Amino acid sequence: MENTFKVEVYYEDTDLSGAVYHANYFKFIERARSHLIATLEIDQLKLLKNDMMFVVRSVSATFLKPAHFGDCLDVKTAFLRIGSASIQLKQKVLKSDECMFVALIKIGLISKGRPTRFPEVIREKLLNKDRFSN
Amino acid sequence: MENTFKVEVYYEDTDLSGAVYHANYFKFIERARSHLIATLEIDQLKLLKNDMMFVVRSVSATFLKPAHFGDCLDVKTAFLRIGSASIQLKQKVLKSDECMFVALIKIGLISKGRPTRFPEVIREKLLNKDRFSN
Amino acid sequence: MENTFKVEVYYEDTDLSGAVYHANYFKFIERARSHLIATLEIDQLKLLKNDMMFVVRSVSATFLKPAHFGDCLDVKTAFLRIGSASIQLKQKVLKSDECMFVALIKIGLISKGRPTRFPEVIREKLLNKDRFSN
Amino acid sequence: MENTFKVEVYYEDTDLSGAVYHANYFKFIERARSHLIATLEIDQLKLLKNDMMFVVRSVSATFLKPAHFGDCLDVKTAFLRIGSASIQLKQKVLKSDECMFVALIKIGLISKGRPTRFPEVIREKLLNKDRFSN
Repeated sequence: MENTFKVEVYYEDTDLSGAVYHANYFKFIERARSHLIATLEIDQLKLLKNDMMFVVRSVSATFLKPAHFGDCLDVKTAFLRIGSASIQLKQKVLKSDECMFVALIKIGLISKGRPTRFPEVIREKLLNKDRFSN
Repeated sequence: MENTFKVEVYYEDTDLSGAVYHANYFKFIERARSHLIATLEIDQLKLLKNDMMFVVRSVSATFLKPAHFGDCLDVKTAFLRIGSASIQLKQKVLKSDECMFVALIKIGLISKGRPTRFPEVIREKLLNKDRFSN
Repeated sequence: MENTFKVEVYYEDTDLSGAVYHANYFKFIERARSHLIATLEIDQLKLLKNDMMFVVRSVSATFLKPAHFGDCLDVKTAFLRIGSASIQLKQKVLKSDECMFVALIKIGLISKGRPTRFPEVIREKLLNKDRFSN
Repeated sequence: MENTFKVEVYYEDTDLSGAVYHANYFKFIERARSHLIATLEIDQLKLLKNDMMFVVRSVSATFLKPAHFGDCLDVKTAFLRIGSASIQLKQKVLKSDECMFVALIKIGLISKGRPTRFPEVIREKLLNKDRFSN
């Protein structure tokens, strides 16, 4: 399963270099993850009410090409590994077919402030992700 | 009482125009307010634990001159009015003595999601603000 | 002419209150303006290459209701006045039919860092805005 | 040489989890880098006027503990390697002595949009960094 999410670049995303401020790519790919999680019918607000939330444990990212104001970008998200307590994702930001940014992201879950394994219902949705349309 | 708070302009604050992105002035003056509230020995985290928080009710702002990367700015905050359920502030962003941005801000308090009057202990701290050093 | 633009609320837009951080409404309505300007076939990148850009001169805004993570918001933009050197807009952020935020915005144009009148070609596009579909 | 830079956490830095939004750590460490570069008497604005700028080529980061509103954080920056066309830095975000976030950052220079080697004057300042006080 590879999920695609569209991002448009606005003034707020750029810096004085004229290009997207580097930290904002992490916002773009987070939007894509939130969208993907919703697609999998995992309700993050319900999780939060139960004092659980997904957190980023680590990222490893390369900035390949600068994106600019007005660019329409695609964020492509692929699952690399679904463990019992963490997920590994590969996320790319593309302009047309050119890759601007690529990141490996490790996501975990915390419950009441502590790392926890995924509840069975969430793990099942993650494992059955290919059932959900993009 | 007029409170001064220093802000330095970083890449993240600018946009492709080379100047500070307009919405970021509202971040700058919010930092100054949080700093000022701490100066008055009002503990915002304690308020939050009691499900209370200060909120911005309205703003009226004029963008006079653009600030740029590397600028060291002063945010000057003055109280215009301290009511039973809202405060009015005038906040200016200055570079040396030149005014870049000026805003009138109305702040209220919400408790459990609803507007509320200031508790007496907070109102007293606000009214006695001149006792606190800048 | 009233223009509608969709905004979805992500983690990055919220603060510890659980609601949208107040300054981010100004980002939301700026996205709507950039989108509207593109709809009018005014090319902001081309303007920038000629050292011209639209700038916000003043805002007057009221925060009515808090928006939250996952909310799908509509930004409605209406022209109040199109002058020779400035535009006045009314912009609302709505959740379903409930108004969360309303702002009056005055926009000007700068050329080589100085305020300037709108070039005829831009003024015409602004005046003929009703020809453009939403 | 290890450089220390102070960051205070404001509303704008947090998200609905109550903690600092993950991407904002990259803003914190970028402020520290800009501050460090200024300490080395490298003028980023002058570079920009010559169409040169430092860019982040890659990051590898681990999120260890959440920082919260009101926290006073230290960003510690150490040089790992100074090459002819790139620098490698290790940057940590600490709260008191507890490490919240650690990142390896590779920085390069671009000139007229293309990667370039550091001019001799910049390379010298980087190599002589220990002469500069923190």
